[in-house]
Amino acid sequence: MSGAPSAGAAPRLSRVGVKNITYPVAVLDRTEGRQHTVANVDMSVDLARPMLATEEADLVDILNRHSGEMTAENVPAILADMLSAFDAGRARIEFSFPYFVAKKAPVSGLSGLLEYECRILGEAEPGESGARVNVGVEVRVPVTILHPASVDPERHGSRNQRCVVTVALRFGRIIWIEDVINLVEECASSELYSLLKRPDERHVTLRAYENPRSHEEIALEVARRLAEDENIRWFTVESVSLESMHNHENYARLEWRREGA
Amino acid sequence: MSGAPSAGAAPRLSRVGVKNITYPVAVLDRTEGRQHTVANVDMSVDLARPMLATEEADLVDILNRHSGEMTAENVPAILADMLSAFDAGRARIEFSFPYFVAKKAPVSGLSGLLEYECRILGEAEPGESGARVNVGVEVRVPVTILHPASVDPERHGSRNQRCVVTVALRFGRIIWIEDVINLVEECASSELYSLLKRPDERHVTLRAYENPRSHEEIALEVARRLAEDENIRWFTVESVSLESMHNHENYARLEWRREGA
Amino acid sequence: MSGAPSAGAAPRLSRVGVKNITYPVAVLDRTEGRQHTVANVDMSVDLARPMLATEEADLVDILNRHSGEMTAENVPAILADMLSAFDAGRARIEFSFPYFVAKKAPVSGLSGLLEYECRILGEAEPGESGARVNVGVEVRVPVTILHPASVDPERHGSRNQRCVVTVALRFGRIIWIEDVINLVEECASSELYSLLKRPDERHVTLRAYENPRSHEEIALEVARRLAEDENIRWFTVESVSLESMHNHENYARLEWRREGA
Amino acid sequence: MSGAPSAGAAPRLSRVGVKNITYPVAVLDRTEGRQHTVANVDMSVDLARPMLATEEADLVDILNRHSGEMTAENVPAILADMLSAFDAGRARIEFSFPYFVAKKAPVSGLSGLLEYECRILGEAEPGESGARVNVGVEVRVPVTILHPASVDPERHGSRNQRCVVTVALRFGRIIWIEDVINLVEECASSELYSLLKRPDERHVTLRAYENPRSHEEIALEVARRLAEDENIRWFTVESVSLESMHNHENYARLEWRREGA
Repeated sequence: MSGAPSAGAAPRLSRVGVKNITYPVAVLDRTEGRQHTVANVDMSVDLARPMLATEEADLVDILNRHSGEMTAENVPAILADMLSAFDAGRARIEFSFPYFVAKKAPVSGLSGLLEYECRILGEAEPGESGARVNVGVEVRVPVTILHPASVDPERHGSRNQRCVVTVALRFGRIIWIEDVINLVEECASSELYSLLKRPDERHVTLRAYENPRSHEEIALEVARRLAEDENIRWFTVESVSLESMHNHENYARLEWRREGA
Repeated sequence: MSGAPSAGAAPRLSRVGVKNITYPVAVLDRTEGRQHTVANVDMSVDLARPMLATEEADLVDILNRHSGEMTAENVPAILADMLSAFDAGRARIEFSFPYFVAKKAPVSGLSGLLEYECRILGEAEPGESGARVNVGVEVRVPVTILHPASVDPERHGSRNQRCVVTVALRFGRIIWIEDVINLVEECASSELYSLLKRPDERHVTLRAYENPRSHEEIALEVARRLAEDENIRWFTVESVSLESMHNHENYARLEWRREGA
Repeated sequence: MSGAPSAGAAPRLSRVGVKNITYPVAVLDRTEGRQHTVANVDMSVDLARPMLATEEADLVDILNRHSGEMTAENVPAILADMLSAFDAGRARIEFSFPYFVAKKAPVSGLSGLLEYECRILGEAEPGESGARVNVGVEVRVPVTILHPASVDPERHGSRNQRCVVTVALRFGRIIWIEDVINLVEECASSELYSLLKRPDERHVTLRAYENPRSHEEIALEVARRLAEDENIRWFTVESVSLESMHNHENYARLEWRREGA
Repeated sequence: MSGAPSAGAAPRLSRVGVKNITYPVAVLDRTEGRQHTVANVDMSVDLARPMLATEEADLVDILNRHSGEMTAENVPAILADMLSAFDAGRARIEFSFPYFVAKKAPVSGLSGLLEYECRILGEAEPGESGARVNVGVEVRVPVTILHPASVDPERHGSRNQRCVVTVALRFGRIIWIEDVINLVEECASSELYSLLKRPDERHVTLRAYENPRSHEEIALEVARRLAEDENIRWFTVESVSLESMHNHENYARLEWRREGA
């Protein structure tokens, strides 16, 4: 669902809106109910004319009213407000924010917060029987990988690196950000932690050594598990590996759509 | 032309490659023949399997060999090297770089360099009678706008702001970056300069005052002129205005495709 | 108060710590009592040896325990915990965060949140009668300026631009971030807003036209007002102006210290 | 050598200048003679008054004239031009740029360019017998480290991570950027490469395994070697380690000054 270009005819404006608004918001948290964070927000509508100053103010005012609950679940309500304030062909909101999850160290049990960058995107088009709405969620999960080819047969060392797996997905029922994070972390050589004492570190080093995975293998494994979940309709998975021996990054990407979705 | 997602079937890798390589390159310069700059480069191929270490090295080596002439004109040759090194369904390169243009101040004639961010993207698919290649160019042009609604009838001031117009286009014959820059600057209330003395500043302030334009009007005017050029097949224009009285940005976007292109 | 370099003797480590921790924190808000935001945190101690894994965990754990009240007032307590966890020559914490202030549009009275980047720095050295502590606050205030030289005698336009004034200060009694913001905004040609309707915009344009100020004049005026406040012991003021006709920035900087402070 | 704050007296401007100018420059290259790159430049002078538009233009014009040779060796000439254009108490220039070094893979001998971020700072004060000039060089060197505590006695894996060592120094005779890079890379568990085939990777993994070093140990070793060189008068070394199991960074810092310098 993206704006059809004006083909051949005289060019005309499609999307107009406001960008880069930093705003304090509350998002859903499975454990705590609600989590306070700070979002970067873009809001736009498809109009064939410039936006009036009073309309810009309307957009920011809609954000203002919904900032207490900026969740994937609430996005249709925000988009409905945008469509009713403008006589627009489409409304679009996108907001990204750091999301914090409490994690316990594997041996010492020490607990600390870990940050994951998330993005929620929503688009709505007015329809005869109510607006058609599309909501997507994107989560960036940093993990540790240990490359299989690096495991020396004589055990003279191995090679681990930081890898960031970004999953974007569309679904039937709303899904928890925590579930996406868990799924990715289970596919990695090891997850990251906030607090680790020496016995925790040893535990994690050993776990990674026993789970060698290239960044492409992790991307594929994440994709296989997502495809098994009937609730998931579409996804992309991107893995970016910060190579420990080069100063560039390796990456892999795949896209998948459920048949009939 | 983008990789078709694996629909319904088992997920498999599509794009694999290297990212964020900083590299010194030479690009074409209409006045000087060649210009030295520094590019950020992404290169990828569509493979259904992980990339081997030796293949990563091959990608970087292809960059190495072509860095002396990284131009829109030369992109098909780079992509052909990528397709022949890999048995890939598609090859893709994207590089962005600051491009410098010498400009003279309007009254004093002082000359200095102005920087414009550019991006060149190329994709190639192997075909029976040679690869099918698509090349696109993107140029970011910062300009000054003076909002028409801000021109007070009693002349108690007006309101100008910085606006960035980004043009992405596809074409028949290769076009000069300088031509895209000129076209955008002619549509603005005023262009920017590197060096200005006081009489230059007065000249520019007056010129902007006599050419009030909203950022949406500039985007539209740029689009109309591009559509008149038969060589241009497709484009997007985005204008982002750094509002002088708010701390967010306003933006507008449009996309256009020539009939039959 | 900064770590003396090891002069001539064998080099040894001074500062060791953790950097770039993103953490949800609560800060003081004059109107609401408490404000939720997200901070980027650096914590370090002066040790002449590497930090143990368990000590890193201790640092993050101290942050964990204080995150519910990360304020200039609370910094001495955080630093005291750091000094007692380590046998260190000095403890240092620095955290930056977006701070939100509700502002009303001047004519329509519409209310919205505006973001200001803030930074709090604290250093403590152990002393015989308790630790000696230094706390500093830095606030970045974006404003509008209208250059006096740009006001045309025949009223053919004027020239405004975005300017960012950064004030760093040390004080006796804790001061409110809101007071620093107000002081800077009063010295500008105009402050920024979150929501403005057309009559608000006209009001603001006129106000700026009647208050022409260069960025250097604003920096000086801010400095004069700060020097009049006996509670302020030291400050720097930096003004950076995003020139509307060039693609570089102009800046000015000054530093001041109260006699005897 | 930094501007004395106006203590107690009425505040007055000290530094005024231009910032964030992106400019193509040529720098010295030990192998090739000259290297083309792109710099970000700040230039300022200590004036007690605002800068005139014509003076801003003068600053940019001085940059213009020297851009063909922006090297530590040439900084005194640039600063002399700045002092003679302004009747200033001090002139200051700072420019940072990516610097490229050709490196060969250890086994295959493949050659590729590696990027290092560099910064050159210069300050000059007018004196009776010519200006007193201070020039400093800063180089960021990314390396691989393998933490000694991570080497398992039963050889079940080890733990490497990316570390960035930043060296800032002042000296008697001009020194080569390449020499600073070499010195840091020799102290690391392993250096980075641009191109590596599988046998190269094995070689590098093994080398790191045989050279376990914490980031603090590398910082200290770099410092010890710098202190042995009589030409070096002052330095700081900072090591920042991107922890492979946490999502924050560990860091260490030290400063050293030669006795009598």
